[in-house]
Amino acid sequence: MAMDDVPGSMGTSAGFALRLGQTIFSSASLLFMAYGVQFYSYSSFCFLVTIMGLVIPWSFTLALLDGYSVLVTCPVRQKGNNGFEFRLMNRKQVLSTLTLAAASSGASVVDILMRADESFCPSNICSRYLLSTIFAFLAWFLSMGSSLFNLWLLPSL
Amino acid sequence: MAMDDVPGSMGTSAGFALRLGQTIFSSASLLFMAYGVQFYSYSSFCFLVTIMGLVIPWSFTLALLDGYSVLVTCPVRQKGNNGFEFRLMNRKQVLSTLTLAAASSGASVVDILMRADESFCPSNICSRYLLSTIFAFLAWFLSMGSSLFNLWLLPSL
Repeated sequence: MAMDDVPGSMGTSAGFALRLGQTIFSSASLLFMAYGVQFYSYSSFCFLVTIMGLVIPWSFTLALLDGYSVLVTCPVRQKGNNGFEFRLMNRKQVLSTLTLAAASSGASVVDILMRADESFCPSNICSRYLLSTIFAFLAWFLSMGSSLFNLWLLPSL
Repeated sequence: MAMDDVPGSMGTSAGFALRLGQTIFSSASLLFMAYGVQFYSYSSFCFLVTIMGLVIPWSFTLALLDGYSVLVTCPVRQKGNNGFEFRLMNRKQVLSTLTLAAASSGASVVDILMRADESFCPSNICSRYLLSTIFAFLAWFLSMGSSLFNLWLLPSL
């Protein structure tokens, strides 16, 4: 398989879609979490907000690079030079792991809060927490897909 | 690098140590969680127990295979036949991801419970939950190490 046929790699439209979706989902997760609720009372939600603050600029930069490369049809990456992509892959996998950890710890706190009594967590606030973790899981799915696609790069290194 | 020099692959002593540690840590996690505490009140702890119940037989079987292969110096795997190891790798990564999710969701519930009042979670029970999640994280570290070592197999496929 030629390098440029690998789906989801730098500068392809599939890669652009993956990163754009990741940016949108993680921004939605951060917005639902950050406005009007006291997320800093729970360390899991603090962790979720921190990780989303890391993921958003990272995926947004990659989406910009991919979008530029698709629009002007100018390859960002030279043929045969996969070192850049390989280094990106490692960071992507680390961020994907962190997103999974944040999303699942947020989900378990949401589960506990929704079973507690109403005074502890009013239902409009609880549904915000729930939406935020759902978007975090969606961002993780995209990010995991992107790093799984990148495994196909390894044999060509 | 020759196939048999890859550390942590099937039938090496490093692989045996990794799997034995994984078995011990996940059993410790399950035991601390399962005896004398009502883990089924919290869905995160139920998830943790389920995943540990999956990880223990899996890593125990692999540890037995590795130990047999090390003791009798009879290679389990023929040279040049990496398909078996490759299929193992996929399952290992799935289990490692699930262990991370279970450990971090358990940790966030422990964090919430330790901040709640004493009547909600007596301190002797809380410390059991805490120890159980710590062992789950240790099991995840070993399992992640084992699947990272396995990435070195990919170029030889």
